[in-house]
Amino acid sequence: MEPRLNIITLGVKNLDKAIRFYRDGLGWPMSGASVGDFAIFRLHTGTALALYPRELLANDANLKDEGGFGGVTLAHNVITREEVDSVLSTAVKAGGRLLKKAREAEWGGYSGYFADVDGHPWEVAWNPHFRLEQGNLLLPE
Amino acid sequence: MEPRLNIITLGVKNLDKAIRFYRDGLGWPMSGASVGDFAIFRLHTGTALALYPRELLANDANLKDEGGFGGVTLAHNVITREEVDSVLSTAVKAGGRLLKKAREAEWGGYSGYFADVDGHPWEVAWNPHFRLEQGNLLLPE
Repeated sequence: MEPRLNIITLGVKNLDKAIRFYRDGLGWPMSGASVGDFAIFRLHTGTALALYPRELLANDANLKDEGGFGGVTLAHNVITREEVDSVLSTAVKAGGRLLKKAREAEWGGYSGYFADVDGHPWEVAWNPHFRLEQGNLLLPE
Repeated sequence: MEPRLNIITLGVKNLDKAIRFYRDGLGWPMSGASVGDFAIFRLHTGTALALYPRELLANDANLKDEGGFGGVTLAHNVITREEVDSVLSTAVKAGGRLLKKAREAEWGGYSGYFADVDGHPWEVAWNPHFRLEQGNLLLPE
């Protein structure tokens, strides 16, 4: 199995509201491949981000959904410490919720968290140990 | 906020077991940036996959964790219909659990789901409407 993650799909309660958050609030480019109750965004980092009604997503995966956190977080890395606060502020203005104010991290960086309009947690992190090139993390072998 | 997803982190119960699943079972390349209770894999698709104890992950994001599905699924797209069954079979041999046997999908492709050793759901999909180039989905603007 090749090491690939092509799409991450976030279950949403109200698709229009979630689209407004990502497309209009954060300014992310929605792809023309979006259709019906499925929206998909092209990201600079390769893996696409999709939105789909949470109930249908659970059904599709044959899973029971009791709501809440599923043990998955998403991270958006930035190049400077200052960007962490400005990105968190953008997300909150777009309708997101601040989960954790940015603070010094024990691993030597600076990070905070916001939740999107459906509660999915995003970390916004400046990690001085990780280099970014054209938005992509450069990880050692 | 730039359209980027740098890392997706999956909360795990037993880090060694999860590493064995992804590194040894699926054959994915673990990065030298892995340290302590944090493991990170370099994927062909840009976004990195990280593993971290689920309890610590919830604490880090300032979230309460009641277990279960969190409304997030991951998708691994393949180029041929036949690969769907073979990838599902690889994942099950590696210790994953079949959530949904591959079947014709209403959107015109063929797909099934497995759960990793911590229950995180992966869809394995052949979608004739989506082209893959060097493992990456080519989505229209």
